[in-house]
Amino acid sequence: MLYLLWHQNPDTDAICAPLAWSAYLTDQGIANTPIRLGDINNETRFVLDYANITEPKLQTTLNPGSSLVLLDHNDEAQSIPNRDIYTISWLIDHHALGKCTTNAPLMIRVEPVWCTCTVIHQIFTERNYTPSKQIAILMISAILSDTLFFRSPTTTHADRDAVTALNTIAHIPNLEEYAIKMFDAKSQLDGLSPDQIITTDYKIFSMGTKKIAIWVIETTNPRFALNKKKELLTAMAERKVNDGVDAIFIHIIDILTETNTTLVLGKEEEQAIQAIYGAHTQDHLANLGDKISRKKQLVPACEKYFAR
Amino acid sequence: MLYLLWHQNPDTDAICAPLAWSAYLTDQGIANTPIRLGDINNETRFVLDYANITEPKLQTTLNPGSSLVLLDHNDEAQSIPNRDIYTISWLIDHHALGKCTTNAPLMIRVEPVWCTCTVIHQIFTERNYTPSKQIAILMISAILSDTLFFRSPTTTHADRDAVTALNTIAHIPNLEEYAIKMFDAKSQLDGLSPDQIITTDYKIFSMGTKKIAIWVIETTNPRFALNKKKELLTAMAERKVNDGVDAIFIHIIDILTETNTTLVLGKEEEQAIQAIYGAHTQDHLANLGDKISRKKQLVPACEKYFAR
Repeated sequence: MLYLLWHQNPDTDAICAPLAWSAYLTDQGIANTPIRLGDINNETRFVLDYANITEPKLQTTLNPGSSLVLLDHNDEAQSIPNRDIYTISWLIDHHALGKCTTNAPLMIRVEPVWCTCTVIHQIFTERNYTPSKQIAILMISAILSDTLFFRSPTTTHADRDAVTALNTIAHIPNLEEYAIKMFDAKSQLDGLSPDQIITTDYKIFSMGTKKIAIWVIETTNPRFALNKKKELLTAMAERKVNDGVDAIFIHIIDILTETNTTLVLGKEEEQAIQAIYGAHTQDHLANLGDKISRKKQLVPACEKYFAR
Repeated sequence: MLYLLWHQNPDTDAICAPLAWSAYLTDQGIANTPIRLGDINNETRFVLDYANITEPKLQTTLNPGSSLVLLDHNDEAQSIPNRDIYTISWLIDHHALGKCTTNAPLMIRVEPVWCTCTVIHQIFTERNYTPSKQIAILMISAILSDTLFFRSPTTTHADRDAVTALNTIAHIPNLEEYAIKMFDAKSQLDGLSPDQIITTDYKIFSMGTKKIAIWVIETTNPRFALNKKKELLTAMAERKVNDGVDAIFIHIIDILTETNTTLVLGKEEEQAIQAIYGAHTQDHLANLGDKISRKKQLVPACEKYFAR
């Protein structure tokens, strides 16, 4: 059995990309099981409801030797625990290459576009494969989510073109309206514990010998998160110890104003924020201005500092 | 400027793949310079002569920040020295993923086929690009070389199909005859020093915390190499010290009988050969039978032993 995996704290792309690839493989007669490694966020729940698709199964252990398709991630720190007991057959991604060695040759498609579903759309096009309406909705949602409705810096033509092509199948009447509904769903933090808020998009990166946790809350209303500052700092402190990371950051990204307010846990993080971004911290808060992309801006900047 | 690189000890695929990709980029109006990191072997010289193409420039340092296209390799131990001061923009390969982290997202095409030129042929086909006759000759030569004229275990349909398609452009009259001429050229070891023989296809692999040198002499006449056993053992001992590797092997592959006779340097290598392949060593020689593929058989087997 081929297992389709996404990273431990899946965002909308990380859920929709495996579902799209799973549908494609099934149509080719290849048995597969998409499994998720973490909880689904409110935005993704809205998307799955809209497309009328049930959420995949949560499963974090498999039989040793199982074949894996990695989607939307490659670094082993973000992947299934004990990944080296499995065989990686496929990797489809749009991130920088992290720690990801394999024992045998495999199939890899990585492109510097903004969304894994954009890469999948390109493969579908090359192979003359037309996804179903439900899958087209998922793929569009992933691209709108990852690009913040094309607001992210250096959103590529490929991302825009994919949405245009896919919407000839999905027929979402008003894409901007749909995107805002998605983002509003994501901004709803009520009913979530601080640790649940954190884990909606939590990623640990290997940088040199260090492990750095960087998570991002993308929201149309930063107040939802800032009102929970005290609880979030407590949850960060617990995570730092439990996950054995060297530094930990929460970036609260205001999708509408495209600004980044960062929660700074302690002295180590304060020094790092000063050195990396030249930003001053007050009351555990730092203004990182327009640094809103984890992939293009935050991770590369941290990498330079921590992997020295 | 975009620099197209192959690994330090280039075989025919490693030279032809960058030349093919360079011609494609040039036709797209993208300035690029293919450079080689090591000496060209006699087989590749025969191929370049047949296609009437001059050999690329030897160059092992570039301006920091230069953009790289990696072809036919990904592990940093096989690549340009100090690779982390450059930017990797593209990776086209058919090997397992080794130590290959990047600071930013990039374009990656890796497929579990037998030759980098097969991957390139697939990209050309997807993009409706027809290579010139000269480039088609290079690409066919690379595939014939890597697959030992389709003799290697698990040569894929994609490799065969690529040769068939490319020969409608290259018009090589008799492919088998052409392949044998290539292999004969490679088997000519006269006039080469032991170190030159070794470096014709020398690769260092990172396995766990260890560095293992595995090189392969593919020949239609193993006697050429076996007659130089003493000199080769001396050259191996020097390489082991100078390159700081933990173990070192020369596999002499008889292309016609598809058998592997291995030169075993010392006690460490002897123990490893016994443990990995169950093979007994006598007078520095071990018979590894039909283990003739470095990529599919030798490296994965060593990896299991050394990366414990």
